[in-house]
Amino acid sequence: MAVSRRNVYLQKKSLTEAREIVTRRFAGLSINETETLAVPDAIGRTLAAPVFARLSSPGFHAAAMDGIAVQAASTYGASETRPIALAIGSQAIFINTGNVLPAGYDAVIMIEQVQQSGDAEVTIEAPAFPWQYIRKMGEDIVATELLFSQNHTITPYCVGALLAGGIFTVAVRRRPRVLIAPTGPELVDWQSADTDNLAPGQILETNSYILGGLIEACGGISERHAIVSDDHHAIRDIIKKAMAGDFDMVLTVGGSSAGSEDHARAVMADLGEILVHGVTIMPGKPVIVGVIEGKPVFGMPGYPVSTIIAFEQFVGPLLCRMLGTLYPDKPVADVFPTRKLASKLGVEEFLRVKLGTVGDRIVATALPRGAGSISTLTEADGIIRIPSNSEGVAGDRPVQAELLRPRAMIRDTIVVVGSHDNTLDILADHIRIEHPGLTLSSSHVGSLGGLMAIKKGGCHLAGSHLLDTEDGTYNVTYVQKYLPGRDVRLVNLVFRNQGLIVPKGNPKAIRDISDLAREDISMINRQAGSGTRILLDYRLAQLGIDPGGLNGYGNDEFTHMSIAAAVLSGTADVGLGIFAAARALELDFIPVVTEQYDLVIPDEFFESARIQTLLETIVTPAFKDRVAALGGYSTAKTGSVVTIRADA
Amino acid sequence: MAVSRRNVYLQKKSLTEAREIVTRRFAGLSINETETLAVPDAIGRTLAAPVFARLSSPGFHAAAMDGIAVQAASTYGASETRPIALAIGSQAIFINTGNVLPAGYDAVIMIEQVQQSGDAEVTIEAPAFPWQYIRKMGEDIVATELLFSQNHTITPYCVGALLAGGIFTVAVRRRPRVLIAPTGPELVDWQSADTDNLAPGQILETNSYILGGLIEACGGISERHAIVSDDHHAIRDIIKKAMAGDFDMVLTVGGSSAGSEDHARAVMADLGEILVHGVTIMPGKPVIVGVIEGKPVFGMPGYPVSTIIAFEQFVGPLLCRMLGTLYPDKPVADVFPTRKLASKLGVEEFLRVKLGTVGDRIVATALPRGAGSISTLTEADGIIRIPSNSEGVAGDRPVQAELLRPRAMIRDTIVVVGSHDNTLDILADHIRIEHPGLTLSSSHVGSLGGLMAIKKGGCHLAGSHLLDTEDGTYNVTYVQKYLPGRDVRLVNLVFRNQGLIVPKGNPKAIRDISDLAREDISMINRQAGSGTRILLDYRLAQLGIDPGGLNGYGNDEFTHMSIAAAVLSGTADVGLGIFAAARALELDFIPVVTEQYDLVIPDEFFESARIQTLLETIVTPAFKDRVAALGGYSTAKTGSVVTIRADA
Repeated sequence: MAVSRRNVYLQKKSLTEAREIVTRRFAGLSINETETLAVPDAIGRTLAAPVFARLSSPGFHAAAMDGIAVQAASTYGASETRPIALAIGSQAIFINTGNVLPAGYDAVIMIEQVQQSGDAEVTIEAPAFPWQYIRKMGEDIVATELLFSQNHTITPYCVGALLAGGIFTVAVRRRPRVLIAPTGPELVDWQSADTDNLAPGQILETNSYILGGLIEACGGISERHAIVSDDHHAIRDIIKKAMAGDFDMVLTVGGSSAGSEDHARAVMADLGEILVHGVTIMPGKPVIVGVIEGKPVFGMPGYPVSTIIAFEQFVGPLLCRMLGTLYPDKPVADVFPTRKLASKLGVEEFLRVKLGTVGDRIVATALPRGAGSISTLTEADGIIRIPSNSEGVAGDRPVQAELLRPRAMIRDTIVVVGSHDNTLDILADHIRIEHPGLTLSSSHVGSLGGLMAIKKGGCHLAGSHLLDTEDGTYNVTYVQKYLPGRDVRLVNLVFRNQGLIVPKGNPKAIRDISDLAREDISMINRQAGSGTRILLDYRLAQLGIDPGGLNGYGNDEFTHMSIAAAVLSGTADVGLGIFAAARALELDFIPVVTEQYDLVIPDEFFESARIQTLLETIVTPAFKDRVAALGGYSTAKTGSVVTIRADA
Repeated sequence: MAVSRRNVYLQKKSLTEAREIVTRRFAGLSINETETLAVPDAIGRTLAAPVFARLSSPGFHAAAMDGIAVQAASTYGASETRPIALAIGSQAIFINTGNVLPAGYDAVIMIEQVQQSGDAEVTIEAPAFPWQYIRKMGEDIVATELLFSQNHTITPYCVGALLAGGIFTVAVRRRPRVLIAPTGPELVDWQSADTDNLAPGQILETNSYILGGLIEACGGISERHAIVSDDHHAIRDIIKKAMAGDFDMVLTVGGSSAGSEDHARAVMADLGEILVHGVTIMPGKPVIVGVIEGKPVFGMPGYPVSTIIAFEQFVGPLLCRMLGTLYPDKPVADVFPTRKLASKLGVEEFLRVKLGTVGDRIVATALPRGAGSISTLTEADGIIRIPSNSEGVAGDRPVQAELLRPRAMIRDTIVVVGSHDNTLDILADHIRIEHPGLTLSSSHVGSLGGLMAIKKGGCHLAGSHLLDTEDGTYNVTYVQKYLPGRDVRLVNLVFRNQGLIVPKGNPKAIRDISDLAREDISMINRQAGSGTRILLDYRLAQLGIDPGGLNGYGNDEFTHMSIAAAVLSGTADVGLGIFAAARALELDFIPVVTEQYDLVIPDEFFESARIQTLLETIVTPAFKDRVAALGGYSTAKTGSVVTIRADA
């Protein structure tokens, strides 16, 4: 294999250009075959033809109130001083809401306005005007009128109007059929693979299932082809067969970029025409749009976030146009990034963010940008699109975000920014169980980062375990230093064991922190500003060890679990972290210290209902039991409060 | 049957009170039984327990770029002036995105930064830092970490994260089962009735199908009971059996108000406890909430709009809480009512409105308020909720509306307010076919009402056929009088026949307008301000007939189809209207005049893309053919434009 054999991208297109090319080229493509369905079964489907009412609703004049039917003329002149008596049966007929107006009657008087003045007569004290309290025939629907246009999507409300108008079956567009062909020699299918014993390099194929769900959500039917090796001829055969068969579209997944084993483009160029290869978006760049025998074929990127963005920008909108509908826009809101977000010029970036409402602002905290991390989308509450002509967005100024979750959920979120601890995940889950409307959203930027976020109004509270190396206390002096002028409560969440995480069996016989200085030892570190890093630096200073001389001191990670994962994978021999992380990955653990992990809560949020809910939750036995089950924690002081006054 | 036998409502509750009662009483009710589903089949379902990752993703260190794997240390010092050569195979290994990082290597250099300097070596001009362009094991997901909380709803994105984390099946809450029992002796089922020959008083039962669709949409399963007569014992048996069986909830539909044949309340009081009977909302007032054997039972109102609002306020939110989810809030927007909207004090009103964006405002035009008219919901784009402590909302001031359609649809709407003509429906359908993103929304307030709407910025254009009785011209003088200072285009839509609509066979031998003065004739009129009313008044004046002496002159309707429906149903013997309406309902038609029907378009909208799309559509042969098929129209001048200049 050599450099010269690589593909290169065609001229990359901007998102707008690429979308216009797709729209124009497939403008005439629509699903014209129909299915006839019973109306209640047609919810979510799109009408293939306009529908006109066959019956009027109501089909007769009906009482709109409980009362009596009368001839309006017989009531003229009635007043409190001159009540009029009406004979039951000939001048007045009792009638309930919905009943047919008897022939010869033209008004209804509400029962509340009627006095029964004898066995055979009633009295009224006000006249009726003609047609009062009557639902006239056709008031709702007149036979022959247009009920719904072609391309209307049937809702449960529509079911009512259709049935009332005498329409019991409707012709809807059949669902478009999409073949998904995942490609790549590294892929294995969870349905057949021995997933407990994956070989290095094997990856569970997930994109076809994600894409299948997205296709179904916009009204299509997906069929998944078995995983295809990156073999030109195999991919070619699959596309040819799909085109000859009854598929309306093909998505190959993977092999769409410019690597030497990326066959999608060659196959598509061979069988048809390539409209787009490469779009200046991130993630999603290596998407290919082609047309073969008049049908659209997409080469979808192999990274899950890339493939989802390519779907949402190209495939979904095209499928909807084929069905005569519109791909739904995501709702948007103005949000405030908690810090400056840099972005590459010339590329439109889809930045995933966590959102929450702090004070009167929706604040946005950026998630990692890797296109390979599906978790950056599942954890995201929104997406900030940074245009290609921008180098990023400033912090503390509003910018538009597309929302991935309901507004109410973003409103009712407790935003935690700061140090990571596994008990925060347990807390999030526990709150969600008892309070489905309340979300705890945590971002991991280290203890000092959390205090900075409080300072800037970017969160409701911060998780912190900052050791004052002068007096051995936690958090208090840092709050006083970094949040001057603020009234704050420190609520203890847990005490926890920090220690050295080493591989099972401790093969390099590490005993304590001094071993980090050994030449045969490579460590993994936590990021600057994290309480764990401060703890490490403190211990190194106590031991007189120069951090600059440690192997791997400059490689850092943002969570305890990432430290444990680095040790498990052999990236490093050792890292400082919490017991729970070591235990989770079945690694060995050498205790170094028991430390205090507090929630730092500014007074202005402390009394709020959502924070009180959180505080009530952490002292429940059920929550404490779940924390105890993680190992390495003490909840003896959980919930205890220290008040820090700005003027103290 | 007598007045004294009627029920009365329990003390009616406000919406807030009633919702709190339901929330509190059923706080402990949740669906705890689970189903285990393959992950791809679990989309839309709710997790019954938190899910933790079983595998890390990636499960190995992988290249994040196409390029070469290197040992970072071997690259230190490389620069443009001092390139470093690396031996292929021992110091550099070609690697594609996603490949396993070979043992002993710790960095990847992008292929774009690599020169092949010989068969066996490559050259680099910049150093690599350790772990650059490598996706580390666990970067996306670390085994044992929390993937999703209990009560999380699975999306297609989640499918990717679950499968990548080695989770292939999940335990989800089973769907709640709801029995729907429609009640009422007047109801017939479309599946069994002879719908072409309904007897007077018979009504097609639609509510159970609407409710079924709404239940499915929030994750429940509905079962429909056959229609039940309003019989106390029958209803009692059904509820008892459902409670004993595996239903989680029962909805009886109809018979929930205080009429003499409304048994729902008595049955529920008999079997259990009534929590709420009557809520101060409109529509939706006569809802009953009860609890029987610990399970919720709702008496749903019989009018479709009432039953939908009662569902959305009570049943849907409770079903979602039982599933641990939240009933989705409707998105909201600030809208400007085109006129003052009065509302009853003490009642929270759910007013259905049509919405469209005119200039920079979303304008709202009220739809009829009848709770019995499902079309007021299917035609609505939004709902304005007028609080119970308000007597209405002022026109031209913003008020919040809940949106029933996507924002993009409300943005891309052509708002037509004015005279009604059947060709507007055809036009709406026709535009929708060619331009799925564009909606034509028309409200019928008569020709003069349309000009007033233009004046107030409430529409893009108005349909108008206002006859100047002085000179026989249409529209021009009215525009000059009512829209002074405005530049306007008059675009002809159609010429059309207006005439007398009479029953088939013309039983009363009506010949012309002078017959309206006959004592044996009862007419139906159009509303004041409509072009048809002006035309009628003009003809009556010509004939020297006093309108005040005509039977039914004071009864008016807002559309031609309503006039035809009134004649068909016997409400009136005759009415003035267009041929197409008469023909649609197979009535006879006596021509009176051919009149000109124009679209009045202010200059500021005339050149907009959406109006140009409309103007292109009306001159297509396909549109003209559909208009011709209605009968009674000429399209000879369709599309011709008259320009009216304010300064002319």
